[in-house]
Formats: sequence, C-alpha cells, structure tokens
Amino acid sequence: MKALVYHGPGRRAWEEVPKPEVNEPTDAIVRVTAVTICGTDLHILKGDVPEVEPGRILGHEAVGVVEEVGASVTGLKAGDRVLISCITTCGRCQYCRTGSYGQCLGGGGWILGHTVDGVQAEYVRVPFADTSTHLLPAEVSDTAAVVLADILPTAYEVGVLNGQVKPADTVVIVGAGPIGLAAILTAQLYSPSHIVAVDLAQSRLDAAKQFGADVTVASAEEAERVVRELTNGLGADVAIEAVGVPATFELCTKLVRPGGHVANVGVHGKPVTLHLEDLWIRNVTITTGLVDTVSTPTLLRMVAAGRIDGERFITHRFALGEMKQAYEVFENAGDSGALKVVLQA
Amino acid sequence: MKALVYHGPGRRAWEEVPKPEVNEPTDAIVRVTAVTICGTDLHILKGDVPEVEPGRILGHEAVGVVEEVGASVTGLKAGDRVLISCITTCGRCQYCRTGSYGQCLGGGGWILGHTVDGVQAEYVRVPFADTSTHLLPAEVSDTAAVVLADILPTAYEVGVLNGQVKPADTVVIVGAGPIGLAAILTAQLYSPSHIVAVDLAQSRLDAAKQFGADVTVASAEEAERVVRELTNGLGADVAIEAVGVPATFELCTKLVRPGGHVANVGVHGKPVTLHLEDLWIRNVTITTGLVDTVSTPTLLRMVAAGRIDGERFITHRFALGEMKQAYEVFENAGDSGALKVVLQA
Repeated sequence: MKALVYHGPGRRAWEEVPKPEVNEPTDAIVRVTAVTICGTDLHILKGDVPEVEPGRILGHEAVGVVEEVGASVTGLKAGDRVLISCITTCGRCQYCRTGSYGQCLGGGGWILGHTVDGVQAEYVRVPFADTSTHLLPAEVSDTAAVVLADILPTAYEVGVLNGQVKPADTVVIVGAGPIGLAAILTAQLYSPSHIVAVDLAQSRLDAAKQFGADVTVASAEEAERVVRELTNGLGADVAIEAVGVPATFELCTKLVRPGGHVANVGVHGKPVTLHLEDLWIRNVTITTGLVDTVSTPTLLRMVAAGRIDGERFITHRFALGEMKQAYEVFENAGDSGALKVVLQA
Repeated sequence: MKALVYHGPGRRAWEEVPKPEVNEPTDAIVRVTAVTICGTDLHILKGDVPEVEPGRILGHEAVGVVEEVGASVTGLKAGDRVLISCITTCGRCQYCRTGSYGQCLGGGGWILGHTVDGVQAEYVRVPFADTSTHLLPAEVSDTAAVVLADILPTAYEVGVLNGQVKPADTVVIVGAGPIGLAAILTAQLYSPSHIVAVDLAQSRLDAAKQFGADVTVASAEEAERVVRELTNGLGADVAIEAVGVPATFELCTKLVRPGGHVANVGVHGKPVTLHLEDLWIRNVTITTGLVDTVSTPTLLRMVAAGRIDGERFITHRFALGEMKQAYEVFENAGDSGALKVVLQA
C-alpha cells in the first residue's frame, strides 16, 4: 500500500510500504477513506517532536471503513464506517477509567502517527479499536467527520471547556488557524458576549469573522486595547492560546482579567516566561492539555444534528494519492489560504 | 497611639501616631487586642511591594473590639469583638458580588497595611466594616481567631480549594512556613492519602509532621524521588507552592502528575520559567491567587467547633508594646523556630 512516511527532519515521501496486519486481538485494520493533515505533522517534520522515529507513517485524523478486526473486538465489524480518534484509549488504565484518555497509561494516548504508524495511508492498524473509534451515522459525511478526529474536540475540550467559557464572557482567541477557528465555533455553544480573534494574517481574520468572531485584530497592542475597551479595562474572562510560541502565550496572560482563565491549546517547543510577580495576586487559572476526546460523542451528535458544520473547515480537497500536493498546499497556508486539506480515497 | 510605621526599605519604628478617626460612614474604629506579623510584612520591609509608601502603618491580621462605627454601619456596634479580615470588601462591585473579594474594585481588596494604614497599632480604621469584619463567638479566643485573618483562608482557598484536593490524592506542599502548615492542616479536610511536605529547615519539617504531613523531605531531589515512589511514578495530584521563589514554583511543576494541579500561594517578586514544552501535553492546571476570604465563615465555624486549632500556629507571645522584639523573633524564624508571633493588648 501507499503511505506518507517520515524520514527525519524535513524529509517525507508518499511511498510503498507493507499493508498493516492485526497484531493484537484488540486491533482493527481500517481502510482510510478521508484523511487530513495537522499542524502537528508539520511540527514533526521540523524535528520538534523527537520521539517520532524515521520510518514512521504520519497522520492522526481520518475516517475509514473497517476491513478486519482482532478476536477480542466486539463493537466493530468489517464494513463499519468509523471515525478514527486522534487519541487511542486502552479503556482499562486509571486515566482511561476517569475519562482522561489523552494520558492513557495502557499503551494509548496520542500514538497514531507519533509512536505507531498513523493514518496518512491507504490502511491503518487501529489499536484498542473498540474504544478508539466512533461509528458514524449515515447523515455525517466523511469530510464533515474528519474534523472530529482532532481539531473540534481539541479546541472544545482544551480551549473552551478548560477555559470555562460562560454566558456573557469576553473570550479572546489568539491564533485563528484551524484550532483557533474551532475554538471560535465551539465557544459559541456557551453564549459569550464577545469573541475577539487575534492573528497576523488577514485571511485568517476574515475566516474568524465567518466562524463567529465579532471582533478581529491583527496585533498584540491592538488586542490589548480592544479587550480593555470591551471589558471596562478589566481584561478577558478567557484567553485561548492557539499558536504555540512564547509571545502568544505571554500575550494571553496579559489579556486575561483578574480571576480569568488562560487555556493553552498550542503545541509548544520552548519554555515561556510566566510573570508570577504580576500574576500571583490576580487569581488567574492556566490550563494545558492534550485532548482526551471525551467530548467526541457530543460533538458528533451536534454535527449529525446540523448544529456544527464540520465541512466549513475544509478549503482544499485532493485524492488520497495526491499527498505531496496536499502537504505543499497546507505548508503554504499563508499563500493558499488553506485551513484543512482533505484527501479522499 | 502607638503603631508600627514603615519608613522605606529596611526601616520601621513602633512610634507615636495620631489615633484614626471615622472618615467614611462605612468605617469602624477597632481597638486592636491581638495582632500578628505576616511574611508579607517582611516582603514589604525588603522593598518588594513598592506601592507601600513610607509612613504607612503595617499589618493585616488582627482581632479587636469595636470602639466606634460610622453612620451607615448596621451590623456592628461599639463593644463587639471582631476578626478583621486581611481582605476589605466593598460588597457592591462586580467582583464582590460574585465572592471574589480579593479583587474588589470598590476600594477594597488587600488594602490594610498596604494602601491604607494597617492593624499593627493600638487602633485601626476598618473601611467597609460591615462586610470586612466577622463577629467572634465567645468560645473562640483572640489568639485562635487571629490566624483566621489571613493564613488559614489563604492556605485553604488559594492552596487546597484552588488545587482541588480530593480524597485519595497525594498532595505535596512545598514550603512549611505558616502558610504551608495551614495548607497541611486544611488539606486534611478533603482526606488525601498522602501529604508530603518539602522544606529546607528541619524545624519546619518537624512542625509539618505535627500538623499532619505523613512524609517530610528536605530537598528537591528527595521530593521528586519520594513523590514518584508514592504515586507509581506518576507525580502528585496536587502541588501547593507556599514559598514564592522561582525554584519552588518550578519544582511544583515537576512534581505534579499529568492531569494534576499546581496551586501557587507564594508571593512572587520575579518571573518564573514555565516549561510549556513539557507541560502543554500534560493537562496541568496552574492557579494563582490572592485570598478572597470567602471561606472565613466556614473556617471560623470549624475553629469554634474545635475541628481546627488556631492556637497551634502560635509559637511566641508578646505584649502589644513589644513590637520591636516580636519582629526580631519573626525575622529570625530559622533560629527562633517562630511560626506565628502574636501580640496582645
């Protein structure tokens, strides 16, 4: 079969590899029908995620059809159409038993395209398939479902829920890429009064408006001024970091009001400076997180009911064999305006 | 009257000053009967809190008897015995109306001994007296009550409640001064399985044992080893920072498990390094806070019921006129073994 293989920093190829097989009785083999590329894949290709070894098939966001299941899989059968969650769930460890699937101690967590072969391939072996996939109802298309693998639950759980967005809040979202846009979309479920989007790129600010931001700003200084104006000088109730660099994290800690929440969603490669000399007295809560995907069933129901439109994230469509072109378009999002690119078999 | 006056960094005097008067109809004048010194007073004397101006009377932890009340005070009368909260509460602003008294926008918050004259004096003017004092039942002594002004609610709210201590948790408390000891005491209200106290001073570790820590350690390395052993290598459910320097904060972020809580209680004068390159993926919650004193009625009921012994914090007793000696004993806690020193009129 063909797959996108990582060959060390800066090197990747869509190449022939062996088709995966059932190794464990809890595995399923899934034929991939729709797959997308994540900013995290670009981080891996830059060498930012050193535990990814050369030879690894990348990708952790896909939809497919079950081809074969291991002997102990009871909830899936060949022919079932499933969402493959970016988080694999053993279902048995102390973290999984409390819904903290992202921190699974039993061999799960974020493993696909990270420590085991991922989904940017014609077929993928899905460990712990019973608890790591979701059956898709017929009314949810592959392309609407694929954003449920990672970006929607990540933005919702790690941004909106960790940030405790509440009615009447002023929410500022720093970074209007796919994750930031998904935060804008899902923050609206809690009826904030204002959603302020901050990004350097005008194309992303335009998208932020379309996704529901009522104010967009293109610089840190402007963000500070606008948030002050909207909040009688107090600051935002919730600041969501959706970039992953020190400057944007530190901006969030400046924008938040006393008693407010900073929810970090970005993948960081460097330490940041935390100004505790100012913040110790301000009753600020800072959260970090890998998604647990505990909200995926909820979000899937909302997509099925038409309350969330998963398709709107998708700006570019390719055939599965056009992986090289899809990566190039996604890497050059500044020019291409790409949000999510989807490849379909 | 006599009062302890700050004269700029390193300079203080117990000296004659004018007796305070009712300035606002919401004021009360209280005759101080028991007062203590806080680590924060020493920070002020070092010059770490620049908004405290020379000429300011220090102190924010006291008990006294109401001498006079302003025209609009309805809940207090001359002769009432009251706890003076370290947090002044206007009761009217948007923060006070949601119980966030520490962030009061109406002229309250931490003002006593900070931006208005404090309680290390024979008399003190207490602004917003109706909502900033607590009537004391006869069974609670002045010396048991005085620790309810700051250290008990601070350790409880900013440490134990912000840290979300739960049954079965492993809680590590870094710093076993009065605040750390109060965190050890109040953490037990939520039935953790282990309380680990970390401090450099053996006398404080001995005190930590007496207050309920089941493990005490004298170094960061030992803390990491012990916490790993107690938690199958995972880390503490809750790490409470009760010192206020970068090294102890960063230690807390190393000791906490994925999904755990770091509750910062310490007063910090410098930025810290936050290792988001490790923490972004670990679902850690970090909280900061000035106390709101919203728990003071609860804690007062527990002291009155004999469930919390406020007296046990008090290692040294002085007459009110011995302020100079009391400060010297408290400043040299390493030699004197002082936890809280109390001065009584």
